Order: sequence, then C-alpha cells, then structure tokens
Amino acid sequence: MNIWFTEDQTDTVRLGLKVESVLWKETTAYQELVVANTDAYGRLLVLDGAVQTTIGDEFVYHEMITHVPLALHPHPRKVAVIGGGDGGAIREILKHPSVEEAHLIEIDEKVVEASRRFFPEISAGLDDERAFLHYTDGIQWVREAKDFDVIIVDSTDPVGPAEGLFAPEFYASIKEALGDHGIMVAQSESPFLQPHLIQRVMTGIAQSFPVTRLYLAAVPTYPSGLWSFSLGANGDLQDAALRPELRDMPTRYWTPQIQRSCFDLPKFVQELVR
Amino acid sequence: MNIWFTEDQTDTVRLGLKVESVLWKETTAYQELVVANTDAYGRLLVLDGAVQTTIGDEFVYHEMITHVPLALHPHPRKVAVIGGGDGGAIREILKHPSVEEAHLIEIDEKVVEASRRFFPEISAGLDDERAFLHYTDGIQWVREAKDFDVIIVDSTDPVGPAEGLFAPEFYASIKEALGDHGIMVAQSESPFLQPHLIQRVMTGIAQSFPVTRLYLAAVPTYPSGLWSFSLGANGDLQDAALRPELRDMPTRYWTPQIQRSCFDLPKFVQELVR
Repeated sequence: MNIWFTEDQTDTVRLGLKVESVLWKETTAYQELVVANTDAYGRLLVLDGAVQTTIGDEFVYHEMITHVPLALHPHPRKVAVIGGGDGGAIREILKHPSVEEAHLIEIDEKVVEASRRFFPEISAGLDDERAFLHYTDGIQWVREAKDFDVIIVDSTDPVGPAEGLFAPEFYASIKEALGDHGIMVAQSESPFLQPHLIQRVMTGIAQSFPVTRLYLAAVPTYPSGLWSFSLGANGDLQDAALRPELRDMPTRYWTPQIQRSCFDLPKFVQELVR
Repeated sequence: MNIWFTEDQTDTVRLGLKVESVLWKETTAYQELVVANTDAYGRLLVLDGAVQTTIGDEFVYHEMITHVPLALHPHPRKVAVIGGGDGGAIREILKHPSVEEAHLIEIDEKVVEASRRFFPEISAGLDDERAFLHYTDGIQWVREAKDFDVIIVDSTDPVGPAEGLFAPEFYASIKEALGDHGIMVAQSESPFLQPHLIQRVMTGIAQSFPVTRLYLAAVPTYPSGLWSFSLGANGDLQDAALRPELRDMPTRYWTPQIQRSCFDLPKFVQELVR
C-alpha cells in the first residue's frame, strides 16, 4: 500500500510518513483526531494535521519535558501537566518516587480516550492511583491551583485550542500556582523553524519568573527534528544529576549527563535567547 | 509557485521543501546534481536525490565534522577531507590557526564547480593558499597519504560512489595515513533511522583504532534531524575546550560546551554503540 501521511510542518517544509493503515479518525469538539500505523515510527497520533506523538520517538519528548524540570526540583511531590492528553508525560512523572500527585489537565477528553485505546504503552500511567484527570480548560484550572512543585505545559502548536497556553498571563497564573521551589516548563517549538516563538515564550516566562532557561532535545517527527523547552523557576535550580534516585531511572533518552548537556545551546540558539 | 523538492530519506520517510526556483541540473560522471532555491533553508545542493547541504543549516554539519576532531588534537597542522566537494569542511578547518594544509579529495570535480558557482559562502575556503584540491578517488589517495593529523570522511550516503568509504579496509588505510596523535571522523547517518549503519561504522573503525567515540548534532535537512559522527583515534584524546585559540572561534553551532556535550549520548544511542 503506497499511502502517505503528510504534515505541512510550516508553509514550506513537509514531513511524509508511509502509512500501513489508518485506525481512527474523528472530529472532536476541539480538533480533528487521527490515529494511523506508520512504517517508520509505528503508531501515530495526529491532531489538526500535526504529529503529536509516535511510538517510535515519543520517549524523547515525554522524558525531556518531565525529567529535566523534576530533576531540578529538590523534592517534587505535586506535579501538573497542562495538555498532554496522551498520558506520556504522566507516565514519566510517575517514575519519580517522590511524586505523590500527578495531575493531567486536558481540555479534550477524546484525546485521552484515543490514547487509552490505541497507545496503551503511552497512556498506562493514567490508571495509576497517583494520577488525577481533569477534563477542563488549563487556563481556568491553573487559576485555582496551589502549591504545585512542577507545572508542565505539554501543549499543541500555538494555533487553535492551545493559543492561550503561550500567553504571558498564563505563565503569571502558573507562577501563582507553584510553591517556593516551583518550576514550570513549556514546549516551545523549533529553533530552526520557529525562532520568534521561542523568543516570545522566553520573554513571556521572564515576566513572571526570576530564572529562565532553554533546553533542547532531538524529536525526529517534529519540525526540523530539534525541539526546545522553555523553563521558568521561582528560585535557584537544584543541581540535578546528583540526586541518587535519578541515576538508575529507566529511560531511553534522558541520562544524568543529558540533564546537564541539554542546556548547552548551539551558538545560534544562545543568541536567540540572549 | 507551488513546486516541491521531495527526498525519500528512507523507503518510509520523506522530507519536502518548497522550491522557489531550480537553478541547475546535470548528470556528472558519478551522480545527478541539482541546485535549487528553497523557501525554508535557502539554496540547496542535491546529489542523486539526497540533500547534501543547504545554506540554512550547512553550518551545523560543517562545524561539527571539523571542529570536534580538530579540538581533540593537540596541534592539527595537516588535515584532509575525503568527499565534501562543497568546500564547507575546508572553510571550517581553515579557521584553526595551527592548520598549514587542508586537502580536499573529491572524486567529482563537478560538485566543486557547482559549489564555487552557486554556494560561494560555502566554497570560499577552496581558494585559500592553504587549501589543496585533489580530484581523485579517496580510497586510492589515502593509500599514498602520510603524516596527517586529522582525516575527515565527509561522504554521501553509503550507496553509489561512496560505498567504499564505509569499509573497514578504508579505515585501516586512514590509520596508516595518520601521525601519532592522529584522529579520523566519518559522518555516520541517523541513530533513529540507520542504527545498524552506525554500528557497522563504529565496529569498522574499532578494527583499526584503539579509541572510538560517537557524537551527535542536529541537522534539520538530514533524515530524522539527528546526525551522528564516528571518531577513531590513535591515542588519548586531548581535552578540547581548553585550547585558548578555540574559545573565540567564529561559529554558529559549535561552542566549547558543545564540544563536550555532543558526546553525551541519549541512552538508546549509548546502547547502540556499547
């Protein structure tokens, strides 16, 4: 079968993935949702035409958006994920023995349903007794939230339902929802293809947080393959790699060395966020 | 104009780049050569259907294939590039004040001609008085070469003209062409899409060199966006970032920190080369 899924990653760059079969397609209240099997990366989740996750590379994104901030906190106990309905971030958060509560705030319940059905490897953590699911708007939810140690913004691209998750007002609410050593992180797209978005996110976070940092990871099915994460902290950052329980965490991308070196930015990226 | 260049990066993954204009197309004695202007990455050089380089991201590959081995050598004086007819590696090598001779060994003179004509930013170094051009087969040339400090294999993919550049016998010849502190490096494709090739190259290099190491860089127009470089050394490796002349080298990707952290491999890549 010579059928291809094609994502217009930007107006001028496309990714094509050969498809074995299309398993599911629905229009939810918020977006178009498609599940397919690809030859190169296995099962694929698409929202509004954009790759969200594949079995072949989901580990990179999910490990890096969670372990990096959690390792920088002295004792992460209460963690929230805004978006991330596939459950991959929750699965990784629950690997930290200090975590008592992992909250998922997903506006579109259909994403969670599709993940439970088609991506059991990714969504498994959602059934853990420390996982709490909230099907509601993340912006509203954060306004009521309190005493979180880490809040992770695992959003779709800054168009459609996720637009408000890239606003400085949202980062200000997150700051209020965090405790003393609180840390936030947001996915902030590609330094090659969306440099201005990274600047906007970092500037927005800096309006509320005294400490900001950018880090990178290689996610092949995302535009350009190089992905950025923008971090904001209320105070000094713990030196990660030293907490002994982190050393043997079962991961496929993250290591204690990557925890440090993901902050070593290429010079053109340094200049972007200077 | 809605015209797209599409590369079949593997049988099941494609990259599409919107094209403004096609500037040149020829069939050389060795391969099909195309030059086009893309919207996303500027000017593009294609050999046998595969992206070789673009103005938008060439700096990553050319800086990382050169500065990493040169920084690990105590005093690189005589350097060779096998392949790399665009001249980008030579341009970077010549940034090192210790370098007295930078040899380019390119089998296809037409690649150098096209680069001089369409990519002056990349090929400029070829006119330097320290640059020496040899239009000949790299495998033959290496057998006669002697006392090189660093030899860089800047090849196309391991099909067609470049096939012999991935053979253990070739690495053995390179070892003979290197001096005491000699270092070789070869581009070795993507850990996501060509893991077995990396294993083959690293095993091949290990047959001749006592020290081997793998490092990574983010090249968005290459398959998966994450690219690997396999390094072999005759002896202990110099600790890079310390040589003072390296600190202020004009680069856009490489930094003294990246010199160190590019060797911090994601866990799945560590396991690949263990």
